[in-house]
Amino acid sequence: MLSGLSAFPLTPMNENGLDEAAFARLIKRLVTAGVDSIGALGSTGNYAYLSREERGRIAGLAVENAGDTPVIVGIGALRTREVQGLAEDAQKAGANGVLLAPVSYQRLSADEVFGLYEAVTRDLSVPLCVYDNPGTTHFEFTDELHGRIAELPKVKSIKIPGVPAEPEAARARVERLRALIPSHVSIGVSGDAMAATGLNAGCEAWYSVIGGLFPEAALAITRAAQAGDVGQATRLSARLQPLWDLFTQQGGSLRVVAAAAELKGLVETPCLPLPLKALEGDARQQLSALLDELELA
Amino acid sequence: MLSGLSAFPLTPMNENGLDEAAFARLIKRLVTAGVDSIGALGSTGNYAYLSREERGRIAGLAVENAGDTPVIVGIGALRTREVQGLAEDAQKAGANGVLLAPVSYQRLSADEVFGLYEAVTRDLSVPLCVYDNPGTTHFEFTDELHGRIAELPKVKSIKIPGVPAEPEAARARVERLRALIPSHVSIGVSGDAMAATGLNAGCEAWYSVIGGLFPEAALAITRAAQAGDVGQATRLSARLQPLWDLFTQQGGSLRVVAAAAELKGLVETPCLPLPLKALEGDARQQLSALLDELELA
Repeated sequence: MLSGLSAFPLTPMNENGLDEAAFARLIKRLVTAGVDSIGALGSTGNYAYLSREERGRIAGLAVENAGDTPVIVGIGALRTREVQGLAEDAQKAGANGVLLAPVSYQRLSADEVFGLYEAVTRDLSVPLCVYDNPGTTHFEFTDELHGRIAELPKVKSIKIPGVPAEPEAARARVERLRALIPSHVSIGVSGDAMAATGLNAGCEAWYSVIGGLFPEAALAITRAAQAGDVGQATRLSARLQPLWDLFTQQGGSLRVVAAAAELKGLVETPCLPLPLKALEGDARQQLSALLDELELA
Repeated sequence: MLSGLSAFPLTPMNENGLDEAAFARLIKRLVTAGVDSIGALGSTGNYAYLSREERGRIAGLAVENAGDTPVIVGIGALRTREVQGLAEDAQKAGANGVLLAPVSYQRLSADEVFGLYEAVTRDLSVPLCVYDNPGTTHFEFTDELHGRIAELPKVKSIKIPGVPAEPEAARARVERLRALIPSHVSIGVSGDAMAATGLNAGCEAWYSVIGGLFPEAALAITRAAQAGDVGQATRLSARLQPLWDLFTQQGGSLRVVAAAAELKGLVETPCLPLPLKALEGDARQQLSALLDELELA
């Protein structure tokens, strides 16, 4: 389940609440395209900004609308007891797996992070993906810590924050981690710009932001890499370089994909929770032109 | 109100809930010592780890037990609408002021942070202190942004994250910010190790972690600096250098003051929310010896 293209949709919302109808439409779009799994309530799904009740509601909607496509649900939160409650809710909603990032306010120690995963996996009945995302959690995993956590029951995948740009260095990086984790634990790349390189370097999964909105484009890259067509995967990703550049310029993908979803009429405007704002002004116009040029629909 | 020693107590808790009796005792201890204000639900008070209901309860307990000592309540949260709700709750509980940090999961832009302060101050009836704490919020204020926010209604103080160690550089840093903000907005130093230097350099307030647990020691430094006795303030702070060093070694003050409160029997063990853990092992023994040596009680 935790291999191939895992697509991470937005959770459309505004100051009055969730846009459940738009969320259900985004899920159906992913199912129609044929993604391998859906990552509901990832960072792109703004899990950190929602109440426990809202997160339970979104987990349920994802499962109801996903049909046979497996659904992974983000359960990250600041407190261990909150995470345990969210794990329960996700399983009750029918999630096929959970995704856990060591969310922090006070910077966490390796010992504290291990304690979190140990406590959460103790009572878990579904696979867990370790979500390594230092850009939002401000926690840096060492490979040694990944190795320790990967031995815990139910741990089935590690979502790593990208790979080096150079193919040989990327392969070496994936192999270094692989040597420290059990063979039943998959490695998935994130950071869309690095996905083709990561898949070509041996990552089994792509935890994908762009796949949550434009699944065909992400599937084309994934299927080329899975077929061993390194060149085609690389070319298809290189074609999207202006989009990856915009992610970098805007300090991340969220505000860009939110604006793209708004521009394409897939969600209402605004779709992000304040104080977050989707792209505005010149950057938004630039994105609009780019979506046309790249024929992303 | 937002001058002198503002003491930030822990919010003692465990996995079952808040220790309200211990919290009330910590507040009374601060009142007895004669601190100038109490900062409930600061970072040391673990505001980010509590539910809205728990935060309302703690704000109420702080006000009830503070007598005539002004109480400032932390209202930081990820969403603007949550912060607005917390501001309402704090005012209903009788808080004399509020403290707002731009808490983030997705890194915030200056425009988003300004929008947050603008929205929150629009409906506020009590003074607000801008809480600049890049170590936990991962947002870096520029002085220019401080200047814009300080013009908003109700903004009455800025809590800055320390000053340079060298006295002349510290004075220059405070004066640079002072030139950009209205005269009714005070500047308060945080980062206990830098407090004496900050007060000597012209900061009107010290937002103090150690003052929340050992108020006499913090008051001695504050009163010396307020009396213009630069040398005495510096000496009293230098005496606590081993404690400041321990804060640095432990990646911050929280786990150290939590262990100190446990060691002194002021709170039950554990008093922090998992996954956070107070000092353990050798570091805890080192702290215990230090508290005796420094006669902190």
